[in-house]
Amino acid sequence: MIITLKKDAPQNVVDELINQFENEGLQVNIIHGDNFNVFGLVGDTAKLDDRRIKANQWVEDVTRIAAPYKLANRMFHPEDSIIDVANIKVGGNNPIVIIGGPCSVEGREEIIDIAKSVKDAGGNMLRGGAYKPRTSPYAFQGKGYEGILDLVAARETTGLPIVSEIMSADKISEFVDHVDLVQIGARNMQNFDLLKEVGKINKPILLKRGLSSTIEEWIMSAEYIMAAGNPNVILCERGIRTFERYTRNTLDLAVIPIIKEKTHLPIIIDPSHATGDWKLVEASSLAAIAAGADGLIIEVHNNPECAWSDGAQSLKPEKFKKLIEKSKRIAQAVDREIL
Amino acid sequence: MIITLKKDAPQNVVDELINQFENEGLQVNIIHGDNFNVFGLVGDTAKLDDRRIKANQWVEDVTRIAAPYKLANRMFHPEDSIIDVANIKVGGNNPIVIIGGPCSVEGREEIIDIAKSVKDAGGNMLRGGAYKPRTSPYAFQGKGYEGILDLVAARETTGLPIVSEIMSADKISEFVDHVDLVQIGARNMQNFDLLKEVGKINKPILLKRGLSSTIEEWIMSAEYIMAAGNPNVILCERGIRTFERYTRNTLDLAVIPIIKEKTHLPIIIDPSHATGDWKLVEASSLAAIAAGADGLIIEVHNNPECAWSDGAQSLKPEKFKKLIEKSKRIAQAVDREIL
Amino acid sequence: MIITLKKDAPQNVVDELINQFENEGLQVNIIHGDNFNVFGLVGDTAKLDDRRIKANQWVEDVTRIAAPYKLANRMFHPEDSIIDVANIKVGGNNPIVIIGGPCSVEGREEIIDIAKSVKDAGGNMLRGGAYKPRTSPYAFQGKGYEGILDLVAARETTGLPIVSEIMSADKISEFVDHVDLVQIGARNMQNFDLLKEVGKINKPILLKRGLSSTIEEWIMSAEYIMAAGNPNVILCERGIRTFERYTRNTLDLAVIPIIKEKTHLPIIIDPSHATGDWKLVEASSLAAIAAGADGLIIEVHNNPECAWSDGAQSLKPEKFKKLIEKSKRIAQAVDREIL
Amino acid sequence: MIITLKKDAPQNVVDELINQFENEGLQVNIIHGDNFNVFGLVGDTAKLDDRRIKANQWVEDVTRIAAPYKLANRMFHPEDSIIDVANIKVGGNNPIVIIGGPCSVEGREEIIDIAKSVKDAGGNMLRGGAYKPRTSPYAFQGKGYEGILDLVAARETTGLPIVSEIMSADKISEFVDHVDLVQIGARNMQNFDLLKEVGKINKPILLKRGLSSTIEEWIMSAEYIMAAGNPNVILCERGIRTFERYTRNTLDLAVIPIIKEKTHLPIIIDPSHATGDWKLVEASSLAAIAAGADGLIIEVHNNPECAWSDGAQSLKPEKFKKLIEKSKRIAQAVDREIL
Repeated sequence: MIITLKKDAPQNVVDELINQFENEGLQVNIIHGDNFNVFGLVGDTAKLDDRRIKANQWVEDVTRIAAPYKLANRMFHPEDSIIDVANIKVGGNNPIVIIGGPCSVEGREEIIDIAKSVKDAGGNMLRGGAYKPRTSPYAFQGKGYEGILDLVAARETTGLPIVSEIMSADKISEFVDHVDLVQIGARNMQNFDLLKEVGKINKPILLKRGLSSTIEEWIMSAEYIMAAGNPNVILCERGIRTFERYTRNTLDLAVIPIIKEKTHLPIIIDPSHATGDWKLVEASSLAAIAAGADGLIIEVHNNPECAWSDGAQSLKPEKFKKLIEKSKRIAQAVDREIL
Repeated sequence: MIITLKKDAPQNVVDELINQFENEGLQVNIIHGDNFNVFGLVGDTAKLDDRRIKANQWVEDVTRIAAPYKLANRMFHPEDSIIDVANIKVGGNNPIVIIGGPCSVEGREEIIDIAKSVKDAGGNMLRGGAYKPRTSPYAFQGKGYEGILDLVAARETTGLPIVSEIMSADKISEFVDHVDLVQIGARNMQNFDLLKEVGKINKPILLKRGLSSTIEEWIMSAEYIMAAGNPNVILCERGIRTFERYTRNTLDLAVIPIIKEKTHLPIIIDPSHATGDWKLVEASSLAAIAAGADGLIIEVHNNPECAWSDGAQSLKPEKFKKLIEKSKRIAQAVDREIL
Repeated sequence: MIITLKKDAPQNVVDELINQFENEGLQVNIIHGDNFNVFGLVGDTAKLDDRRIKANQWVEDVTRIAAPYKLANRMFHPEDSIIDVANIKVGGNNPIVIIGGPCSVEGREEIIDIAKSVKDAGGNMLRGGAYKPRTSPYAFQGKGYEGILDLVAARETTGLPIVSEIMSADKISEFVDHVDLVQIGARNMQNFDLLKEVGKINKPILLKRGLSSTIEEWIMSAEYIMAAGNPNVILCERGIRTFERYTRNTLDLAVIPIIKEKTHLPIIIDPSHATGDWKLVEASSLAAIAAGADGLIIEVHNNPECAWSDGAQSLKPEKFKKLIEKSKRIAQAVDREIL
Repeated sequence: MIITLKKDAPQNVVDELINQFENEGLQVNIIHGDNFNVFGLVGDTAKLDDRRIKANQWVEDVTRIAAPYKLANRMFHPEDSIIDVANIKVGGNNPIVIIGGPCSVEGREEIIDIAKSVKDAGGNMLRGGAYKPRTSPYAFQGKGYEGILDLVAARETTGLPIVSEIMSADKISEFVDHVDLVQIGARNMQNFDLLKEVGKINKPILLKRGLSSTIEEWIMSAEYIMAAGNPNVILCERGIRTFERYTRNTLDLAVIPIIKEKTHLPIIIDPSHATGDWKLVEASSLAAIAAGADGLIIEVHNNPECAWSDGAQSLKPEKFKKLIEKSKRIAQAVDREIL
């Protein structure tokens, strides 16, 4: 950690700071600059609170050298983590997985129908929201537990593992009992109590990036889950909020090589939520695979115009099938394959 | 609601859409433009899902005319809502309230000390975090229930009502029993399950704006609480995330006149979290009052350098006192007073 | 154009507005809603100034239905525009072009060396900055006209057409005389006087997107050039400014299908400026081609550590060569080829 | 400057780097950390290009300690700069100046009328655009030189100094001859050629912040003008582009104390462009004065509904007058006065 001190800091303040850092077992190196003095702290600085140091009026700035995450850090865990989702391996050199399904589960028959379409098209897992985060209290909030059971029925029919979003810790047993890949949505990426709870379970977690989360904050949320005991985290980029409003969000594909450099976790891409427009899903999906994504999660609906939520970004099954076919060609071009 | 249709939409699609809207009890007005046709829907369109309509490939765009919120809407509730927090009235022409206190409750003695300082300086309520949302799992997470009880002790000593953040619905009885103003933090602004839960209690709610929430999304989160039965919502702007990183966030003071035009709810400002730098808190506070804020919530700590969290943005009591004195002069200049 | 009027607007205001629009040759359709009245204007509304209408205190909102651009609009020009750059055809189904070269021209020998490397690697055009927009007045500002002549020498040696940025209208004759593709940089995307000037010349223009420009503003800047008489515009996405600072900018690849839907102009991608980090250039380039880009512009330098500007994002020639090889495979996978 | 090196950097790379820095006259201090080694460079690092250093594959990160600006830096020029605009002193403890006038000059009579209204209301300078940056090539582009002469006529009638925007260096003599305060607009904040040109003239410059410019970039643009020989720069905040679209831009008032800490230049606020909505101008203006602004620049029009540009954000003279009256009360409350 690098601490920049104002040149006119009184000696007793300087001494006190040095003392304080040394008491925490850190080694303090001082560089006397022209306009500032700089402290270089060596040792385990993860426990230091940079904002607390910055509160000192003589401190100009504080810069971290080491990343604040450890369990997720590639530096301390050089091999790729492979996450097992109901026997499908995600990450590393494993085949790219394609998850498809509707935004919301609307009924048992409907979800079984879509599940069949997803499977026929070549999809590997089924997504579907039973609990739905909706901006408006007047919008459809999901079928709840009934929706989970509908997904289970669709799994029984098709064999596809199921992915669904958990919104509240008090529903955790439903997810442990029935869901194969437990999703934390973008709005809950920093719902730390929920992160701690899913850190205690024995199911893989799909952690979506928050709308305005930096890459580091996102990795720190993965670290929460891992620190609580669950190392099985798959990261999912789904677009960030920017000034551009033509698309619902701006898909940030540079995160793929960054996540792979900084962490050992798999990363998949959600082009449906990122763009919010079915016309943009195919191009974004192909781009994601070309950039090295370990998977895609895509909204598919038999009749998007009747979907209870997010119809605008849902593909019809035939478009989804075509997308998978094209994805296979891109995957081959980067020496990978689609599951 | 205005729906723009591609000019070459087949007649049967057009007829089907009209039919569908009329079945929902809406009146459909059609305007034939040069490049598009436009449907103007009259009636209660709040229940329509614009993204579902947009899923239709012939639909170019969907624009809402009426705001999607009702209970919070000034149009249907022209008088200012006055929120009662332990007999302190917030909003309307009531005196501006100043809430002060540390980011985290660190111990009983410490919080009683700060509470006294806050009171001596002229503060009206005491804030303090017992449950803390922290980016890092390795950072201090708050004292929990013990912290709540410490706040209660500080209230007993000083008479100041207490404000604290709830992070999880399973702690709600602690807040109902002990806390005077229950805060929903920025990261939980769209934790809809938590919003619904605090909508069922009989305590006023301080709803912070999310880091990347639009004004409309923020009002919709207030609407969640109100729709669940709790009309006692105070809004709190605490800065939004932008490209500028010199400040922690960018304080958006234009929301004050906007919230007052669009809603009937009180709005207070948090300059400490907005700027993240104690040197910027005073100027931002005075600006907020000049712009019409109903209150301020400010971090105060006897020794920011030892604060367990967010020392960088905490004022020492003497600075806080000075800030209140200056605030009084600004309040007078806009024909208001500080409580 | 849709104009939302407050319900309590006085009749004489309403009449006056109708009168005003009808005098401009527009047909006014009125829809009486529950809380607002809505005017739908039919006719050529491009000349109407929506902000002027919004100044009326009874007007709640103004929404454009038709896009404000005409010459760039796919609706009125359905076929792809093919832009000729020194006999290389860009856009439509033509092969994807790869432009490579250093950020700055540093000397004649150096640029000839790099040009050879670019050609050997399979690049189709040479980029190099002679006039450099630099944040700091103390940074290297480019070699100016000498740099242009160095580029000419490199073209003579290699046959590669040259691409360079114009920063000021008074240098236009240098560019007309010597440069094959005239670049307008991101910082000048709304330097309207410069846009008008390059609209008068007979050279193709490479128009980069501004750091914080919406897609519509970007197309409107193309429209400026086209309206001034030069239809030969190639658009170039180079990342937008967002809250994320890990990358220099956030590359927005969804613009590829959007630009192709909304306009008939070719679009190329600049992954070097978008990411600011050579380690991210390859993944971003492959993604761009998979998403349908008509070309790439990439920084290449024989010795990035000695580059006078933007070394951090420059590839060494061998990495550039590898990138082109991989790009060819991706191009094939989307049924295109690299030139 | 702090350079973080990967721990496994080969010794010859390390030696070469040290050598290189020492050759530039810098002193190199090395701190050996657990996972990284850190170089602290002491001396004049302003000339070093951090992106060039970052190009080295063994370099993990580069952090500047000292600000890259010198002439604008408060550290080397502790007293406030006072800028003289036609004998009106701006900055320091001088009275706050109020600049009013239309977005565009529409005609001689009109501008004289508005100038009188501005003066009657208590305004101190007249603004008016003769050259207008407009997003659309089809929108009114300003009256050009005729507009400048109209402003001169208005000055002759009222005595108010005139402020107008220059868009192109080839018009510089018109501004030198006639305009009292030469404005660089937000879109040209990084039109470096124009900055250099206005750096050579003997007139004060009003430098608006770019829509997506960081505070440091903005100060660096001031540094361009100062480095070219013109120390008379007034900074003007006019809102930044964020995800929030309810307002045209987001007004960032924290820049007032920041600019005053980091630089010695005066800062004024433009609430009209920042908010884009006349209903929000008053609250934003009062907030700006409370936060310590040295002036305001406000759009005023006798008939905003007929304004040729930006009617939506223009105040009618009576509202402007009221705003000044309220501003006086706020100014008093912060121990300042309005001119």
